[in-house]
Amino acid sequence: MPDLDDTLTTEAPAPAPAPEAGSVGIVTPVDFVHERPFVCKNGQVLPGFTLRYETYGELNAERDNAIVICHALSGDHHCAGRHAPDDRKPGWWDNLIGPGKAVDTRRFFVVCANVLGGCVGSTGPTSLDPATGRPYGMSFPAVTVRDMVHAQKLLLDALGVAALHAVIGGSMGGMQAMVFAIEFPSFVRRVLAMATTARESAQAIAFNEVGRQAIMQDPGWNGGDYPKGGGPRVGLAIARMMAHITYLSDASMDRKFGRRRKSGASGESYTFDVQFEVESYLRHQGQSFINRFDANSYLYITRALDHFDLAQAYGSLEAAFAPVNARFLVVGFTSDWLFPPDQNRAIALALLRAGKAASYAELSTDLGHDSFLLESEELYALVRAFLEREEPRVFDFSI
Amino acid sequence: MPDLDDTLTTEAPAPAPAPEAGSVGIVTPVDFVHERPFVCKNGQVLPGFTLRYETYGELNAERDNAIVICHALSGDHHCAGRHAPDDRKPGWWDNLIGPGKAVDTRRFFVVCANVLGGCVGSTGPTSLDPATGRPYGMSFPAVTVRDMVHAQKLLLDALGVAALHAVIGGSMGGMQAMVFAIEFPSFVRRVLAMATTARESAQAIAFNEVGRQAIMQDPGWNGGDYPKGGGPRVGLAIARMMAHITYLSDASMDRKFGRRRKSGASGESYTFDVQFEVESYLRHQGQSFINRFDANSYLYITRALDHFDLAQAYGSLEAAFAPVNARFLVVGFTSDWLFPPDQNRAIALALLRAGKAASYAELSTDLGHDSFLLESEELYALVRAFLEREEPRVFDFSI
Repeated sequence: MPDLDDTLTTEAPAPAPAPEAGSVGIVTPVDFVHERPFVCKNGQVLPGFTLRYETYGELNAERDNAIVICHALSGDHHCAGRHAPDDRKPGWWDNLIGPGKAVDTRRFFVVCANVLGGCVGSTGPTSLDPATGRPYGMSFPAVTVRDMVHAQKLLLDALGVAALHAVIGGSMGGMQAMVFAIEFPSFVRRVLAMATTARESAQAIAFNEVGRQAIMQDPGWNGGDYPKGGGPRVGLAIARMMAHITYLSDASMDRKFGRRRKSGASGESYTFDVQFEVESYLRHQGQSFINRFDANSYLYITRALDHFDLAQAYGSLEAAFAPVNARFLVVGFTSDWLFPPDQNRAIALALLRAGKAASYAELSTDLGHDSFLLESEELYALVRAFLEREEPRVFDFSI
Repeated sequence: MPDLDDTLTTEAPAPAPAPEAGSVGIVTPVDFVHERPFVCKNGQVLPGFTLRYETYGELNAERDNAIVICHALSGDHHCAGRHAPDDRKPGWWDNLIGPGKAVDTRRFFVVCANVLGGCVGSTGPTSLDPATGRPYGMSFPAVTVRDMVHAQKLLLDALGVAALHAVIGGSMGGMQAMVFAIEFPSFVRRVLAMATTARESAQAIAFNEVGRQAIMQDPGWNGGDYPKGGGPRVGLAIARMMAHITYLSDASMDRKFGRRRKSGASGESYTFDVQFEVESYLRHQGQSFINRFDANSYLYITRALDHFDLAQAYGSLEAAFAPVNARFLVVGFTSDWLFPPDQNRAIALALLRAGKAASYAELSTDLGHDSFLLESEELYALVRAFLEREEPRVFDFSI
């Protein structure tokens, strides 16, 4: 039986049940409150911010065994364990993170925070602007992926972390992981970026824009001024339904749903109600999303993605990576058409051109973009081995 | 200077200007009115219907040089020439059809009709139901691709066409072309189906469903009861913006727009107005679509696509193709991810298994699904050669 971390169970009021094997067990989110002004990259200022986060495992005496997990657009800080014994599902990356798992919480101190601009406890458009006492709404600053990373760095400083053993993320999480290594080169030793890109493509911007239009054209949006839990629920559901298709693949949807009918419907006569299972699934995705996500956060975070372009931000991709000391592993997935393999390979190639330690691995999957969340022994083995690897030589000289 | 057809110019009131070389010139749509009841495949009955169509070239004495062009979801009957000398754009397949072109109107009598269920002159949900004097709206029958084809066959009968030299179509047009050969085997000699599928995939159904939800959740939809030109304009624009992305490819969007900014916007500060050229393009696509297309037609036609599954309708794909006498050429495009090459190849393979004359050609393009509209000498040569080929042997025995 692996040891369970007790860092967080001391903060959890619920009685600890018999833990699942390989699980971090019952976890409780914590709020980090930064009470000083935070200047965003574009110059706009937040008077302060909160990041809601979870940790699993214990920080070692050297304070250098921390691994930061960065979440994707619709993710949050709850990436492993359960909040209550009867939670239907564990955290979103529970298959990867836990005692004895690929990200082994017996060895590593794992930190995962909801991003700045988010809506699951961290400061975002739904938060109250202390200047007005009302939600920020569309007066929230134009936060970028760099801002998300800088805010997390302040959390890590507060936690006493001296160096990151690794930063790991898929999709927007991979963008954050790259920026961590670029902005804090002596702090970050390894980056594991999956299903990601160094620049949001025109197609990805286009899908984001359709989602935003669905939200902003919904009368319930009202310029971003709506009551909590209200707002453009129809538009947000449509945005999510569409986006969800881009996270899957043609093949996986055919395997999962095919053309199966929902009820006894058959033949060529049709209605406009749910007739195919895939429609039922998508509508469910849309409906469950609007109960957990905020429309304005969706606008801000997709806009941050649109503006993500390392080459543009730093002059060139090689210039962006020039200060990096971390060793990189970039993982692309064959069926990912949102951030396809080529875009992942390009990251590793640019790192190599910049003289950095970088590897690229491509996994054959048919699950599409969401493949990084796949239960895959092949992926686990890659992650485990990468976390074991010695620090890159370049790092040895810089500390 | 090639001869211009005069079949239609006799019906055109406008004075004929100097024709463009290779153009069918000024054309005028004609309405075919079928005044008897039309029983849809599902048993629902239309008391009659109109198909708006255009023809180019002349029917020969044997009445067997006709080529039917079948349009895609958002297309119409105007596939070549111009309606007026100052028309900004010619018909949607003008690059393929005309005197001396791949579909040579000096040799062939080309017919193209707006589909049943459409909104560009043919009977569809915007048409008045004679029983009520009000638009059909959602009381319109659940028309299928087979119904579209049967309605067109009645038009061809009225035009005195004895046999089709070919049926040509891309996307939903390819579906109609296949069904023509299946339902009227002794009437159809050649089928050229491009960028199409024998069964709408789960992914394609999913995109259609998101578009329908955008329309039906728009308060302006009102259960399908809205004034002409009004209705769910926001929802229809969003549906079109999303669908348009599926007609292109990642590569073509990157080449056409990349991450270019619309105005002087630069850096990481952002707004939610148009900032990228791709956003401006998509919004324009959405806005121009709502001025030419009806939302209820969009619902009905996408639903007809969803229900398109030859194997399901006829028992198996081989059974569907069993009666076919036509020679088939199926063309897939490497960058088409809506109806990818595999789905096109599968059609030709099933035809071969059924003992039919079928070829498959795959063209390398990066334009995505819309590649079938490509200005491509390679495609023109394929079409031209296919139309020259002798009739398949199977046909020789059956007439």
